[in-house]
Amino acid sequence: MTFKASVLTLYPDMFPGHLGLSLAGRALERGQWAIETVQIRDFAEDKHRSVDDTPAGGGAGMVLKPDVLARAIDSLDADDRPRLLMSPRGKPLTQKRVREIADGSGVVIVCGRFEGVDQRVIEARQLEEVSIGDYILSGGEPAALTLLDAVVRILPGVMGNDQSGLHESFETGLLEHPHYTRPQVFEGMDIPAVLTSGNHAVIEAWRREQALKLTQERRPDLLNQPLKK
Amino acid sequence: MTFKASVLTLYPDMFPGHLGLSLAGRALERGQWAIETVQIRDFAEDKHRSVDDTPAGGGAGMVLKPDVLARAIDSLDADDRPRLLMSPRGKPLTQKRVREIADGSGVVIVCGRFEGVDQRVIEARQLEEVSIGDYILSGGEPAALTLLDAVVRILPGVMGNDQSGLHESFETGLLEHPHYTRPQVFEGMDIPAVLTSGNHAVIEAWRREQALKLTQERRPDLLNQPLKK
Repeated sequence: MTFKASVLTLYPDMFPGHLGLSLAGRALERGQWAIETVQIRDFAEDKHRSVDDTPAGGGAGMVLKPDVLARAIDSLDADDRPRLLMSPRGKPLTQKRVREIADGSGVVIVCGRFEGVDQRVIEARQLEEVSIGDYILSGGEPAALTLLDAVVRILPGVMGNDQSGLHESFETGLLEHPHYTRPQVFEGMDIPAVLTSGNHAVIEAWRREQALKLTQERRPDLLNQPLKK
Repeated sequence: MTFKASVLTLYPDMFPGHLGLSLAGRALERGQWAIETVQIRDFAEDKHRSVDDTPAGGGAGMVLKPDVLARAIDSLDADDRPRLLMSPRGKPLTQKRVREIADGSGVVIVCGRFEGVDQRVIEARQLEEVSIGDYILSGGEPAALTLLDAVVRILPGVMGNDQSGLHESFETGLLEHPHYTRPQVFEGMDIPAVLTSGNHAVIEAWRREQALKLTQERRPDLLNQPLKK
């Protein structure tokens, strides 16, 4: 079964974007995943094709209308795919959630624009608000593209080397150890001697120690979480 | 002075991507910001134009060579723009850092691919490792596009309404309150009566209370940080 992403947006031209190139692009060509866009504006019913209106209670910006978005969502076949709303108010995206999504049959993603989306349609259509980070974007589209990139790369068969992806940051609960490659000397700096020792047990121990040290320095918050399997 | 982004990548075709459309795209056309890409592969010197090599100490994946990347970085004019390396090992991006970058003259962004980048070039060229979130992408490009979207939208003159962006999530230290707009009744649900009361003080108080409640529910971590101005 092909993983299917349905993206509801006012900017369908933004898709597949960078997902049409490189790793994700080759997987798309091979049919290992599929993407469709739904233009939310097609579900506006007034003569101006309005999708937004002023916020109840006043204030800056415009709010995406609940009725229009509900019709756009309802135009999709009913299935068990999770329905996400990319939003800075959402639950922060984690690699664990990325894996859960990749293990499913696909995903529906609503991209907000303007000041926000009417709360009633979020509740009525049970949209799962997801945030990709603590910063504000111009809309949900860059967030949707980022989330899909994370999901697609771990779909079965997409990465050439199945080993890649297992020792990476977050998969082990730690940030990844530093990497080195040739040349042996770069601007007077050597590759750490332990890495050229040929002793794999010592190398593994060094990498683990480096990963722990880096995580302690940069992301002590990760060490307070239960370790992932 | 125009804000200038220089992106070092193996996939220059991914840029400007979604930044060529909508808000960021119109600002690009108006010359309110500029973007150039540097193909890292152009700085490979062997006959195969190799940019990566196997990791010292063994293991899966390939590592971006320090000499090639250093030459690519050195090809840029020396200036005071921050030099970022998009990496899951980096410091998590915040709206505060986005504002700092937007207040400067531009940014240099290195997009990693493969297993990682040789640690020595990170140190020698003082690359600031930045993570857009706790998940793994196929490379630095989706992260660079996301970061630039966040930066460009707050550059002077880019947003039509200068008021937008001031009351949003993270700018106040809280997640944003829920939004509502017409119709007055959607699938049997009314807009909360307080919002149609016309009493602005009461509306402001309700919104603040809702924002606090939502932040407590979803992101208690934000409440433990010092409040932003």
